Amino acid sequence: MRIVLDAMGGDFAPQVPVMGAVQAVKELGVKVFLTGKKELVESELKKYSYPEDLIEVVDASQSVSMDEQPSKALRKRDSSIHVGLNLVKEGRADAFVSAGNTGAVMAISLFTVGRIRGVERPAITAVLPNLTGYTFLLDVGANVDCKPFHLLQFAVMGSAYARYVLDEERPRVGLLNVGEEEGKGNELAKEAYRLLKDAKDKGLNFIGNAEGRDIYSGKFDVIVCDGFVGNVCLKLSESIAKTLAKILKEEIDKHFISKIGAITLKPAIKGFKRRIDYAEIGGAPLLGLNAPVIISHGSSNAKAIKNAIKTATRFVKSELNRHIEEEIERFGKSNGS
Amino acid sequence: MRIVLDAMGGDFAPQVPVMGAVQAVKELGVKVFLTGKKELVESELKKYSYPEDLIEVVDASQSVSMDEQPSKALRKRDSSIHVGLNLVKEGRADAFVSAGNTGAVMAISLFTVGRIRGVERPAITAVLPNLTGYTFLLDVGANVDCKPFHLLQFAVMGSAYARYVLDEERPRVGLLNVGEEEGKGNELAKEAYRLLKDAKDKGLNFIGNAEGRDIYSGKFDVIVCDGFVGNVCLKLSESIAKTLAKILKEEIDKHFISKIGAITLKPAIKGFKRRIDYAEIGGAPLLGLNAPVIISHGSSNAKAIKNAIKTATRFVKSELNRHIEEEIERFGKSNGS
Repeated sequence: MRIVLDAMGGDFAPQVPVMGAVQAVKELGVKVFLTGKKELVESELKKYSYPEDLIEVVDASQSVSMDEQPSKALRKRDSSIHVGLNLVKEGRADAFVSAGNTGAVMAISLFTVGRIRGVERPAITAVLPNLTGYTFLLDVGANVDCKPFHLLQFAVMGSAYARYVLDEERPRVGLLNVGEEEGKGNELAKEAYRLLKDAKDKGLNFIGNAEGRDIYSGKFDVIVCDGFVGNVCLKLSESIAKTLAKILKEEIDKHFISKIGAITLKPAIKGFKRRIDYAEIGGAPLLGLNAPVIISHGSSNAKAIKNAIKTATRFVKSELNRHIEEEIERFGKSNGS
Repeated sequence: MRIVLDAMGGDFAPQVPVMGAVQAVKELGVKVFLTGKKELVESELKKYSYPEDLIEVVDASQSVSMDEQPSKALRKRDSSIHVGLNLVKEGRADAFVSAGNTGAVMAISLFTVGRIRGVERPAITAVLPNLTGYTFLLDVGANVDCKPFHLLQFAVMGSAYARYVLDEERPRVGLLNVGEEEGKGNELAKEAYRLLKDAKDKGLNFIGNAEGRDIYSGKFDVIVCDGFVGNVCLKLSESIAKTLAKILKEEIDKHFISKIGAITLKPAIKGFKRRIDYAEIGGAPLLGLNAPVIISHGSSNAKAIKNAIKTATRFVKSELNRHIEEEIERFGKSNGS
């Protein structure tokens, strides 16, 4: 198994990606290609001992910043992302992992490896913790204007990912909407509902509309929506946890007795953090691309990077993209909707 | 000041609305009309002592359940909502307050009191706590398919509410979007951005795009979006706080020392709850209707009801609807977008 890791991607590059790569080769025994500025990456690597044949640095003279326009990033043909995806395209590696600019990775992936046959719109995804496990949400930003048929394809791809990579035997699929009942929603949701309902005959386990609260309720394994709504939900989710934690901290600091008591909460807080921590989740795929591509959170630590590499190996081993191609064909082409 | 309160609205009707009405007449000195099943409401009222001339029960033989279709509710001409709004329409009362079915209140309001001249689409709104104060979000469900011009009108109405009722001198208005930069977003958001930017010349304090995280960041006083996205965000927000609290509680219960420590957190938790509690907020208006209408959360307690009545009195005193009518006219008609 050979995984490319973007050594220049994320808020703490190249330090964190390099550390993550070292953890990955030691713990998972995979081979990792690190793409990035060679001198920089190698001087970072020198800090560690690891099986040297398992890490190979591949020089890339350019890097893409976190807020760079994808169209601009695409023109940097020697970026760590571009060089990395080319390694996968040429068959020298099996998958690509980055904690960098998601939009840029999507754009460069489309340019290099392209889409799976039959997939109209690849999607950016998110794996979100709920009370009992995880909810897989897509699209969270690649397609801000969607047609109903795109949501059907997201459901097919998301369902395949939940089944083959997240080990959900029969993933429960929902459509993000403003109410539970059939007939609710905007034009897009109403028509998508009809397509998803029809797809039940072909084996899609569509169980109905999911409301905003269901993103965290655990009632659904996969929830589909357009990339505008999904992106807003994702950023909203990240911020609420932080805001609530801040308000609680401010209140604890106001009361001496609470401040003392808060110390005893450390084990609970630790467990709490572990359960909502993206570092445990191991990144989220870009789905519909003709190669396994995993995005790790921009503020990933080394463990999150290692877990993203682990997810990439599962993606490869499960032959997910072969399954997606078959499923996409089985669920048919758009009739224009 | 004469406020109508829907005695049959909310999860704990008529007990909680009646208790809220009693608190309101005692603390605020307003007159409250309670609409609902007369016997039921009066037997509830008997439990309290209060200035009897300040509460009047108006019989309404029907009630609307929380999940009833607005179209069906509209046909109940003797519902507590319908009777209540008619009192306002006939000039016998100044405002209407309900903790009941929001969609039904909107539909019956449109049928009875109608829209403010010039307003194309009245909006359902939400007042959400952030680190420093509140964010006023609209629309959160009345209009799942919007045109850009509707979002402009939401901004004008929301800005007026924030100024005249929430006392924000110069409310900062944002457009909910997937990125900060101009040019981001779906078709709706891109065109709405242009309209909002143009409206700055007429005094709208539009400060740019708001991302999902900005609903709680405190950077914006008013955020506009279509009712589909707004509804999903509102339900998502409510659920995340609950989910995080549950996960934290589960973790605290796992550790004996944390369980002990948690007791000392009571004062902090109390302060925390007060800051994020909708009971403190006092409901949210339906904006664009030709009468002051305030919706309180379905699970409101008596204090929340009382605060919603207080908000209604501020709405009336500020002559908000006269301001909205003037502003809507000043910002002009739709040119079709």
